Amino acid sequence: MPPQPPSSDILYGRRSVLEALKAKGRSIHKIWIAENTHGTEEIIKMAHEQGVPIDRAQRRDLDFKAGGGHHQGIVAQASATVYLELEDFLKQLGTAGAVIVALDEIQDPHNIGAVLRSAAFFGAAGAIVPRWRSAPVGETAARVSSGGIEHVPLMRVRNLADAVLTLQQAGFEVIGADLSGEDFKSYTPGKRTALIFGNEGDGIRRLVKERCDKLLKISGAGKVDSLNVSASAAIFFQHFCKNA
Amino acid sequence: MPPQPPSSDILYGRRSVLEALKAKGRSIHKIWIAENTHGTEEIIKMAHEQGVPIDRAQRRDLDFKAGGGHHQGIVAQASATVYLELEDFLKQLGTAGAVIVALDEIQDPHNIGAVLRSAAFFGAAGAIVPRWRSAPVGETAARVSSGGIEHVPLMRVRNLADAVLTLQQAGFEVIGADLSGEDFKSYTPGKRTALIFGNEGDGIRRLVKERCDKLLKISGAGKVDSLNVSASAAIFFQHFCKNA
Repeated sequence: MPPQPPSSDILYGRRSVLEALKAKGRSIHKIWIAENTHGTEEIIKMAHEQGVPIDRAQRRDLDFKAGGGHHQGIVAQASATVYLELEDFLKQLGTAGAVIVALDEIQDPHNIGAVLRSAAFFGAAGAIVPRWRSAPVGETAARVSSGGIEHVPLMRVRNLADAVLTLQQAGFEVIGADLSGEDFKSYTPGKRTALIFGNEGDGIRRLVKERCDKLLKISGAGKVDSLNVSASAAIFFQHFCKNA
Repeated sequence: MPPQPPSSDILYGRRSVLEALKAKGRSIHKIWIAENTHGTEEIIKMAHEQGVPIDRAQRRDLDFKAGGGHHQGIVAQASATVYLELEDFLKQLGTAGAVIVALDEIQDPHNIGAVLRSAAFFGAAGAIVPRWRSAPVGETAARVSSGGIEHVPLMRVRNLADAVLTLQQAGFEVIGADLSGEDFKSYTPGKRTALIFGNEGDGIRRLVKERCDKLLKISGAGKVDSLNVSASAAIFFQHFCKNA
């Protein structure tokens, strides 16, 4: 197979992968290393530090992933997305009012893209995606967001429960979307709100939920248990965003 | 290839396809016929009458579609879904208050499924899908609806503009979701509402739009032009459904 230009989300070769791991902002989701590949110690060490999963792979699979490029036994899937640090975002925000959204372990990139599109539509100021166990904000999410991803600064945090404390210190009221909460319509938004949406199956994780200032739900007619996370998010944004 | 059980949405063989065309309720989305296939005159005639598109296909493609089954040169994609006639639905509804939703040429089965899930969540009484140029309410839509499809009676109509008149005669106020409309929050729902959502790209078709009693929009912050149809629908349902 002649070399093909690989997808923009794919990096290959020791140097490219190592530099991507060193660079802040651009996130690596996964690394594949072929058996008997040498010179990967530093990459493996940094990947472990950053919580990037590493899989073994066959060389011919890497040939395919790298589009026939010279991969030296190592290929990585990177995000096309640039992330801000939460602290830098808060500095840039100053004292302005804002709604931001945090997605706790959302697995489906369609859902992430759909939430980001609605976030952009309603003028949300930013979105937080945990580094672990969330779907990558990659091509699918970007496509589904219909350009929304260009307008909503993304932050990747290692620990969402800690990010909740940081947000509270910055004057955000942290609202968890949760079926055990009160009806959202009875709630009057303040100047700064962070809306947290949990995993499609399990909802918001326990520690994150415990740190929320308030849990709110959307009331339904009982025919099905829950809304899709992107539908919930659209309704919450509509209620919370000042521009709406 | 040994015979495989085909998808439940796939019918093959002259008799199966013909009977599905004759049966009311279960809809055929598409028929493939191989070159030099005999005995298909009645099928082609009924398909034309019902507006079911027919494509030519290679026999080996049909082998694949039919999972190796004995297809006699004819394969059809059917909906696993049973549809009500609009008139029967209205009879069953009697004089009850209701919100129903109509999807005008929605192309993406994910979107159809997502709208149906929200419709079920908020207790919408039914959903109308035009027979032509809409994505099939098939496996994908059913899966995305997360059981919503079991709770929202589906109606398939040949002409949505005519259905609008039928709904108006039955006392429904017909609301089109359209960017040229007024903000939905200023609108107080009546007892019977039909909400119409248009195609992802083009919105509601002209004639359907002209027949709407009212056009309403969701106001945003201007970062992206529009919401995804399933996000819009969730917000409208939340506003219009009494149970919400």
